[in-house]
Amino acid sequence: MVYGEDIAILAGDGLFAEAFHLLVARQQASPAVLLAVVAEIARATGLRGMVGGQYIDVTAVPDGGDDLRVLHALKTGRLIEASVVVGALLCGARNAARLARYRAFAAEIGLLFQIVDDMLDVEGSPETMGKSAGKDEALAKLTYVSKYGMAQTRALAAESHVRATARLQELGGDTRSLAAVADYIYRRER
Amino acid sequence: MVYGEDIAILAGDGLFAEAFHLLVARQQASPAVLLAVVAEIARATGLRGMVGGQYIDVTAVPDGGDDLRVLHALKTGRLIEASVVVGALLCGARNAARLARYRAFAAEIGLLFQIVDDMLDVEGSPETMGKSAGKDEALAKLTYVSKYGMAQTRALAAESHVRATARLQELGGDTRSLAAVADYIYRRER
Repeated sequence: MVYGEDIAILAGDGLFAEAFHLLVARQQASPAVLLAVVAEIARATGLRGMVGGQYIDVTAVPDGGDDLRVLHALKTGRLIEASVVVGALLCGARNAARLARYRAFAAEIGLLFQIVDDMLDVEGSPETMGKSAGKDEALAKLTYVSKYGMAQTRALAAESHVRATARLQELGGDTRSLAAVADYIYRRER
Repeated sequence: MVYGEDIAILAGDGLFAEAFHLLVARQQASPAVLLAVVAEIARATGLRGMVGGQYIDVTAVPDGGDDLRVLHALKTGRLIEASVVVGALLCGARNAARLARYRAFAAEIGLLFQIVDDMLDVEGSPETMGKSAGKDEALAKLTYVSKYGMAQTRALAAESHVRATARLQELGGDTRSLAAVADYIYRRER
């Protein structure tokens, strides 16, 4: 709003390019690992990720639970997944089966994030939420709460949190930091 | 115009991400070379490349030859430079001094491209030009022709073509394909 739409679009394009530039120029890791990170972030932001999810969001009103799941999985879930997988890659994870387990955990907390987000939109106060509460309802957007009701949505969130924790058990080792992230997403109030 | 501005912006973001994805997923080369290619393209499109040049173009009317040179060097020249350097990298060029010579040649044909473009805007016919002739003048844009006049601009183009050819001599080996590119840019009529 301050600088105008043309500058805002350029800023977005610039940040996109500079993110890849910084990654290659500053991050310490082998070329093979850095390349895997570039691929992960490119896929997560592209047509089968953030951009694809945003496209669905602006062009269609999803008509069912599956569409809603696809939209959120692409729009925000894929970025959450990338942030977990990139962390694992940079920490030296190589094994495909192990990376798949990190990815399954990340997909679950992405889903959990969106379910909780929809509940907070209805129940959260404007003081604690970054955006104003009730915004989704005012826009007549399809959310977990509008589709399933608050009680069932709360149960879905609890089930998702249980599944996320189970994914961490499968990973083994010290996963307390990731468990804390899952707990935070489940219990957050804004 | 057909799909609306929101979809157009998303298409731009999507192409950006997919370009990096395709590069990593499809291009045959060692991880180190692919990473150098990613870095080159990220820099060429970022704040010190295409986006930076476009920012200057939309926010300010350059007031001198140096500004004009900076604008074009960033906006189109940097992409032309990247296309030459990326080709050299993928063909196995490793030596920094040799890559610098490819870069110098590319910067020169980028400059040549813009000088010729400004002449064609004045002299070209709408039938042969992709854009309508006289568009720059109608927009009161600062061009090589508006600043130096047609005769001096023609001389600048000839000098630039000579310098580009000299850069190729420094490279040695078989540079006929690159010479043909420089000749085409110098002699093109649209």
